[in-house]
Amino acid sequence: MYKQSILLNGQQLSIEDVHKVAVLKVNVEICPQALSKVKEARKVILEMLDSDIPIYGFNRGVGANKDREIEPTFYEEYNRNLILSHSAGVGPEASEAVVRATMLARLNTLLLGCTGIQPEIVMMYKEFLNKEIHPVVPERGSVGVGDITCLSHIGLAMIGEGEVHYKAEKKTAAEALKKARLQPIKLGPKDGLAIVSSNALAAGKGALVLKEVTDILEMAEIIYSLSLEGLNGNVSPLDKGAYKVRPFPGQEVSASNVRKYLQNSYLWQSNQTKALQDPLCFRDACQVHGTVRDSLEYVSNYMNLQLNSSDDNPCLLFEEKRIIACSNYEVLTWVLGFEMLGNALNHLAKIACYRTIKLSTPSFTGLPRFLSPSKETIAFGTIQKTFTSLANEIRHLSNPSSSDYFSLAEDIEDHASNSMHVVTKTATIIDNLYYILGIEAMHAAQAIDLRRENNLGVGTATAYTLFRSKVPFLDKDRNLSIDINEAYKLLKSGELLEKVKLATNKG
Amino acid sequence: MYKQSILLNGQQLSIEDVHKVAVLKVNVEICPQALSKVKEARKVILEMLDSDIPIYGFNRGVGANKDREIEPTFYEEYNRNLILSHSAGVGPEASEAVVRATMLARLNTLLLGCTGIQPEIVMMYKEFLNKEIHPVVPERGSVGVGDITCLSHIGLAMIGEGEVHYKAEKKTAAEALKKARLQPIKLGPKDGLAIVSSNALAAGKGALVLKEVTDILEMAEIIYSLSLEGLNGNVSPLDKGAYKVRPFPGQEVSASNVRKYLQNSYLWQSNQTKALQDPLCFRDACQVHGTVRDSLEYVSNYMNLQLNSSDDNPCLLFEEKRIIACSNYEVLTWVLGFEMLGNALNHLAKIACYRTIKLSTPSFTGLPRFLSPSKETIAFGTIQKTFTSLANEIRHLSNPSSSDYFSLAEDIEDHASNSMHVVTKTATIIDNLYYILGIEAMHAAQAIDLRRENNLGVGTATAYTLFRSKVPFLDKDRNLSIDINEAYKLLKSGELLEKVKLATNKG
Amino acid sequence: MYKQSILLNGQQLSIEDVHKVAVLKVNVEICPQALSKVKEARKVILEMLDSDIPIYGFNRGVGANKDREIEPTFYEEYNRNLILSHSAGVGPEASEAVVRATMLARLNTLLLGCTGIQPEIVMMYKEFLNKEIHPVVPERGSVGVGDITCLSHIGLAMIGEGEVHYKAEKKTAAEALKKARLQPIKLGPKDGLAIVSSNALAAGKGALVLKEVTDILEMAEIIYSLSLEGLNGNVSPLDKGAYKVRPFPGQEVSASNVRKYLQNSYLWQSNQTKALQDPLCFRDACQVHGTVRDSLEYVSNYMNLQLNSSDDNPCLLFEEKRIIACSNYEVLTWVLGFEMLGNALNHLAKIACYRTIKLSTPSFTGLPRFLSPSKETIAFGTIQKTFTSLANEIRHLSNPSSSDYFSLAEDIEDHASNSMHVVTKTATIIDNLYYILGIEAMHAAQAIDLRRENNLGVGTATAYTLFRSKVPFLDKDRNLSIDINEAYKLLKSGELLEKVKLATNKG
Amino acid sequence: MYKQSILLNGQQLSIEDVHKVAVLKVNVEICPQALSKVKEARKVILEMLDSDIPIYGFNRGVGANKDREIEPTFYEEYNRNLILSHSAGVGPEASEAVVRATMLARLNTLLLGCTGIQPEIVMMYKEFLNKEIHPVVPERGSVGVGDITCLSHIGLAMIGEGEVHYKAEKKTAAEALKKARLQPIKLGPKDGLAIVSSNALAAGKGALVLKEVTDILEMAEIIYSLSLEGLNGNVSPLDKGAYKVRPFPGQEVSASNVRKYLQNSYLWQSNQTKALQDPLCFRDACQVHGTVRDSLEYVSNYMNLQLNSSDDNPCLLFEEKRIIACSNYEVLTWVLGFEMLGNALNHLAKIACYRTIKLSTPSFTGLPRFLSPSKETIAFGTIQKTFTSLANEIRHLSNPSSSDYFSLAEDIEDHASNSMHVVTKTATIIDNLYYILGIEAMHAAQAIDLRRENNLGVGTATAYTLFRSKVPFLDKDRNLSIDINEAYKLLKSGELLEKVKLATNKG
Repeated sequence: MYKQSILLNGQQLSIEDVHKVAVLKVNVEICPQALSKVKEARKVILEMLDSDIPIYGFNRGVGANKDREIEPTFYEEYNRNLILSHSAGVGPEASEAVVRATMLARLNTLLLGCTGIQPEIVMMYKEFLNKEIHPVVPERGSVGVGDITCLSHIGLAMIGEGEVHYKAEKKTAAEALKKARLQPIKLGPKDGLAIVSSNALAAGKGALVLKEVTDILEMAEIIYSLSLEGLNGNVSPLDKGAYKVRPFPGQEVSASNVRKYLQNSYLWQSNQTKALQDPLCFRDACQVHGTVRDSLEYVSNYMNLQLNSSDDNPCLLFEEKRIIACSNYEVLTWVLGFEMLGNALNHLAKIACYRTIKLSTPSFTGLPRFLSPSKETIAFGTIQKTFTSLANEIRHLSNPSSSDYFSLAEDIEDHASNSMHVVTKTATIIDNLYYILGIEAMHAAQAIDLRRENNLGVGTATAYTLFRSKVPFLDKDRNLSIDINEAYKLLKSGELLEKVKLATNKG
Repeated sequence: MYKQSILLNGQQLSIEDVHKVAVLKVNVEICPQALSKVKEARKVILEMLDSDIPIYGFNRGVGANKDREIEPTFYEEYNRNLILSHSAGVGPEASEAVVRATMLARLNTLLLGCTGIQPEIVMMYKEFLNKEIHPVVPERGSVGVGDITCLSHIGLAMIGEGEVHYKAEKKTAAEALKKARLQPIKLGPKDGLAIVSSNALAAGKGALVLKEVTDILEMAEIIYSLSLEGLNGNVSPLDKGAYKVRPFPGQEVSASNVRKYLQNSYLWQSNQTKALQDPLCFRDACQVHGTVRDSLEYVSNYMNLQLNSSDDNPCLLFEEKRIIACSNYEVLTWVLGFEMLGNALNHLAKIACYRTIKLSTPSFTGLPRFLSPSKETIAFGTIQKTFTSLANEIRHLSNPSSSDYFSLAEDIEDHASNSMHVVTKTATIIDNLYYILGIEAMHAAQAIDLRRENNLGVGTATAYTLFRSKVPFLDKDRNLSIDINEAYKLLKSGELLEKVKLATNKG
Repeated sequence: MYKQSILLNGQQLSIEDVHKVAVLKVNVEICPQALSKVKEARKVILEMLDSDIPIYGFNRGVGANKDREIEPTFYEEYNRNLILSHSAGVGPEASEAVVRATMLARLNTLLLGCTGIQPEIVMMYKEFLNKEIHPVVPERGSVGVGDITCLSHIGLAMIGEGEVHYKAEKKTAAEALKKARLQPIKLGPKDGLAIVSSNALAAGKGALVLKEVTDILEMAEIIYSLSLEGLNGNVSPLDKGAYKVRPFPGQEVSASNVRKYLQNSYLWQSNQTKALQDPLCFRDACQVHGTVRDSLEYVSNYMNLQLNSSDDNPCLLFEEKRIIACSNYEVLTWVLGFEMLGNALNHLAKIACYRTIKLSTPSFTGLPRFLSPSKETIAFGTIQKTFTSLANEIRHLSNPSSSDYFSLAEDIEDHASNSMHVVTKTATIIDNLYYILGIEAMHAAQAIDLRRENNLGVGTATAYTLFRSKVPFLDKDRNLSIDINEAYKLLKSGELLEKVKLATNKG
Repeated sequence: MYKQSILLNGQQLSIEDVHKVAVLKVNVEICPQALSKVKEARKVILEMLDSDIPIYGFNRGVGANKDREIEPTFYEEYNRNLILSHSAGVGPEASEAVVRATMLARLNTLLLGCTGIQPEIVMMYKEFLNKEIHPVVPERGSVGVGDITCLSHIGLAMIGEGEVHYKAEKKTAAEALKKARLQPIKLGPKDGLAIVSSNALAAGKGALVLKEVTDILEMAEIIYSLSLEGLNGNVSPLDKGAYKVRPFPGQEVSASNVRKYLQNSYLWQSNQTKALQDPLCFRDACQVHGTVRDSLEYVSNYMNLQLNSSDDNPCLLFEEKRIIACSNYEVLTWVLGFEMLGNALNHLAKIACYRTIKLSTPSFTGLPRFLSPSKETIAFGTIQKTFTSLANEIRHLSNPSSSDYFSLAEDIEDHASNSMHVVTKTATIIDNLYYILGIEAMHAAQAIDLRRENNLGVGTATAYTLFRSKVPFLDKDRNLSIDINEAYKLLKSGELLEKVKLATNKG
């Protein structure tokens, strides 16, 4: 289905590729020209060994220890000490997908030749990915100016220390390397820093999150379409005319998607029973989704740049035979993009909740209160608290976090971005959204059933049928936690999206 | 060690008791007089059956359905539907301790006789606690005006539906009841509401959190004392004179504790090498800890009131034979107290981090940079990122959450407190604090070692020795994640606190 | 009306007193015994001049300069330099009331004898207050560990520099002192620090804010009572029985106030047309107001302690002839109390808004939509946006601020409380609340008029009549900004509260 | 200097233009073709008068009153009532520049012909701008889905009600119109809605804010350059090579600016005394400024779209002779862009503060502590509190605000963006930044003086000289509030930027 493997050269890794390698476990290959660069860069670094120019993390210490000289005889031990002392992350353990995304992100940028790392380590990243050796990486401990406290745990595994997951078991790295017939790495000059000094954890996890946002946004559009049918809502806000005189790009795409999902729906028939204007949660949905799209585009563009540019300091310009102290580890632009995206998702969550409330309200739907199928049934009264509490969590998660840090390392490190925390809270927002949208779908499907309306759109009909195969019509009160959980799993699995895409793109 | 069992009467349940029953699994007994009240209240309710006064959740529906009449023949099914339709919580599952604390909190307030619940259900709570039948309760889904979406899952188990943990296995409630030789409850009028309409989840978990704050605060004082010895710090801020002219209660207790832990320490000897005034993170520690104490006292007082007063609506005043619609479910006072407490803990975390940084800084300690034992060792340079990132999380968690909600249930429920979210984020703050204080202890012990100072205080000597039995002196670079984890476990287990208390209270 | 003057002795200054001196310009007198203490303390300080013990801010510098020795011949110039270099506040200028409250707060704690200041300066504070010489004090620039950058501007004026407001004009301090026949102060040892090193600005302004909260809380209760009459609401949540089984102190007081205002109201008559249970914004009002009361009590208690205890460092214990380095400048307990109070006021604002919305909604009131007096009138449709936007600002202001600071003064000052920012944002919350409650009153009065109900409560009748004398019945559309402004002024002036108190306390 | 007037056609209004018309009071002209569109659109609307299609705000009410029919004979009174009842804003009054920007923003989008407004009103906007008739517009009261409560006050003035500023006086609109020889507008169908239903206030003020951000960002780069000279800092982070391998667009521009300002500076000479790597506040400045640039570009692009596209609902597509209900009032994309921008400015403020602290610290500068010119002078010790407290305010302002709203207008308006609050808090951030950067400049200039370094860059030399003409060398302690204020004014006036641009662009 997918191409056999993904070819890496440091310049073309996409967010989609990260998903394939990390989640679908597609193999990677290294472009030979890129590997040549790595080798040439290594040669340049080794030539510099004889020079006496002070270079951070090479013949000088790192952080506040940048004033300490490192003797050549001490290179191996120094780099080993660096890996050990930087192994200071705390749990939880990163998931397999995140560990893979991290190794991939670091591997790809190593191919730019800006580190001077020994080529054997580059190959080791490839082996770890393709042989599915997954170091145990604690996910917390980074302030986002290089994820050094966490990436060091990958270095640990490469030198045969620490632990890994391999063939469905957690074992020592030493044992796993042996079973996989790999030699532990013997660290040389600058190797330690090249392994740890990168934002690969936040970038790798960040790329996975962006892929999820892309997908959940389309699911939100599908479920909004379903709700519109549940409401017997007004389609006038989808009119192309409005988007012509106000061409905000994201909302044009969203409206176009919704029109596609609703193709052939009964909603397009003229109808005297409709409200002149629906509540804003319905009317503005494409605008709010459009804002998420606009935000997503901003952060995705910069994430692509991140995945294909150097985040090394010092940075080796091997063609110029220069190594420069710089600030390539700064990732603030896309971290703030994530904060904006979280804020946008918060709005999306909130209008989904408001739509769900409206679907339960007779004055908006003309249907029974709480979509109850009979007088004896309480139905969807109490469940409003569930999604409200999840939206409350999202509101809290949408508070900014990037700028709360203090000055470290003898006052040298007085800026940070908290990239990992920002990325992780975005991931949590998405997880809550699966529940919220799942509950909205429960309501939309119930309203459609009570309305006895069969002429759904091309996309919504598919969504409805699939949804009902997991969560049946609520004909009497039952334990709703089970239904919520089924809805959650259906969305999170991606099946709903896939089936609807298939149905709406086939012609 | 503990009294055989705890006697409940609705009026004397303490936070300490909640900890005993929930964590240490002490049994409960019900005071006979209290049980009589429950029976009398039931009698009053049954008498009201004949009356035609509309009563919310009794002969009328709940929430927006309060306009629906409930016929007597429909009582059982109605109450069953109520339990089912209210079972709408989402994961994660509450821990065993939280489930026990929840059942205890509800049981105790049932004894006030304000619900009119059938006495068999009251006994069922007792059985569940003493036989260790622990319903599976999803922890999220409450907006904090009654934890109805979650407490219903306890009701589920009592009527033989849903799942429970029993004898180390998850099984169906029906099976567990059978094994435990208990009959499922047959619900009568008002029973459903009495089970679900309570804040017992937030109160139960909240009480456990307060117990943890009480303990971690003393640990913070012990570790601060140790750091003061690591720094060779100035003890003048502990001088009783200052507290006499500024008698803020919390800080007096904190300073007194620190003086106790430091009794006989070398710090009290006059010493020309000390700074005139230490950094505020040292100097103001008792003031900041005092603020946590003041906040803790505020919220504990109201939690005690919560644990021993009715949170029922409608509320049965059985002696007056009246049932009144009221707002007893409102818990805002102590929820805002928790928000203040989280804010206070944020300050505590921040000064702990600053102290740790200072302990790594030669200009403050006169010791090697990053407390390195030798020139070759990097030691505690990078670990600063770890605690900084954890403090960043705490800062984020300290953002308020209680007021973010929207209007539900046909616009009737337009106020909320988000009590569970507030309590849960406080619990997360504490968990992060174990790491932060553990890392501070790593630094303090290392500084003491490098200082070759043996004359520690009575309390700090005990703390030092125990700590060093888990985390040895850092003589060369090693994987610090392991040390951090050991320190974390030592604090979280309570062992450090217990041993130091023993040492300092014996003479 | 008020006692001729207030006698200060450092031990009994109340929040009410601060209001009297600051706002009503009551004179102050100094208790002779207290003045004796000041003189004795000065003597002790001067004796210490000969000793060679290093004392911060006395014979040693302050802040990071604490290692610098100050020679006796340099005392005057040093203290003058201190005042000058600490004059670093930025605008806006503090109001007259705040400047007065600040001078009062500092004067009162000087009387404890913990500074060793020269008695002439103590008298100067009294003169400034009683002669109404008000130094120009920029309100911003303090991080809340002593308001040193702002208080220095008072010192400036005392030595005849900077500017003051005097007799309705802004003039140079030199000129004003001359006109008032006062000699500029000649600074001696420790005088500079005694003037600047205090939290008198935040405490003074804070006390004024607490007085306002006390008052606005009662206004909120009056207007809630009026709204209840506008709604024809259910009084069952005011039933004393509920408060007996759930005795949270603040809510008991609130409910008792509301019962008092509603005495003799038509609401107490039994009435079949009422809803079984009103929306929570009505039902829970006394609970939410009670939370504000509980919070207010917490912070008021500690503010009283603040106003009557030493915030000096170093702190002179003149009876023991000792001067100790300490942390008396730490005010975190009450600063966090203010943050909790702001959070509580946010809830109060939100339910006031929800009540106002309900009063505009026919399904809750049985009255015309938006309380329109005729079909042609739009009335209160758009105004909902106004109070919503003001509530949004309050939500934003309720975000915490105390813990965002960084390490200063060569890393010595690594803790702060941001007391002034916290106090100031609480003041802004209150200002917005006058608008919100004013608009609620506009709705309540309009609903009462449309309902043609004359039997109002004892307190509400007074409130209604007074309100209608400022804001007449809306019989057709008019510029509502004018009405809002009138309502705002009526509340802010205190007149409404005063009149209603008079009416309800006379019987 | 500027072109005589700006020609408006609804399609080309730039942020720069808004600044010219609003602040510099350049005149506007209306493109004849655009005016023709307006006239044609009016014709279409009048034709629709006869049709019986229900149209929101035209022959039907607005908001929740959308179900009410408006009779033709009632058009004038209805539109007048609409203006009156929507006049519900609260103070403070918008500044002259904001009022002008608002009128300009509305005027330009009216030219798209999407409203069907009478052409006389369009001309009235032009007259108000060119004759400098400035209605009194209260700035608060909008929830950001159309600024209807505020824009109505402009409508008030046009019909001869309310107040305006005209010829340096506040007078009634009636009087001002008379003096300016203008006839009050007589409102026809749809005119009221066309005046009030727009986001022109937030867009107009927003555009002015973006212009200020553009300028302050360049000032921050100039002052950073000056600080680098004050520090004798390392220029290696400016090396073009780093930006080649990490081509984030904003940071490339920032680095290029800094290189330009520092052209010919002594910093480029090789120098053994420099640190290998400076603190991140220096090293990462171009990266952080680059993030502000990236954010600014995002929001500016969408603001340009906003200024030149329709925000009307319903929206008239006059060429198609259709009027459609839509969501053109949604502005969330750029509102969230502003929130991101505020977050970015918060980072910029924080590193400016950290640089200022470093400039006071001998271990980083080799200069005296607090840049004191002599042992007797305290100099810049206390001023650190000032900028820290201002940065604290910025941190607080950077909290998000867009999503805190509740459901209005009978639950129809359940989404909002709080655009005005978001824009206004960004404006406050900028105002605080003038102080912070001004204080940084005080330090940079003092450090340069103490370093006795004359070879400054082309841009920094100009900045230094101008700065010193306002704020002289600190040779002894003086009232620093005065210096701070001078520095603030110099930045805010734009003079510093203008002079440096002139100096650096001439060669």
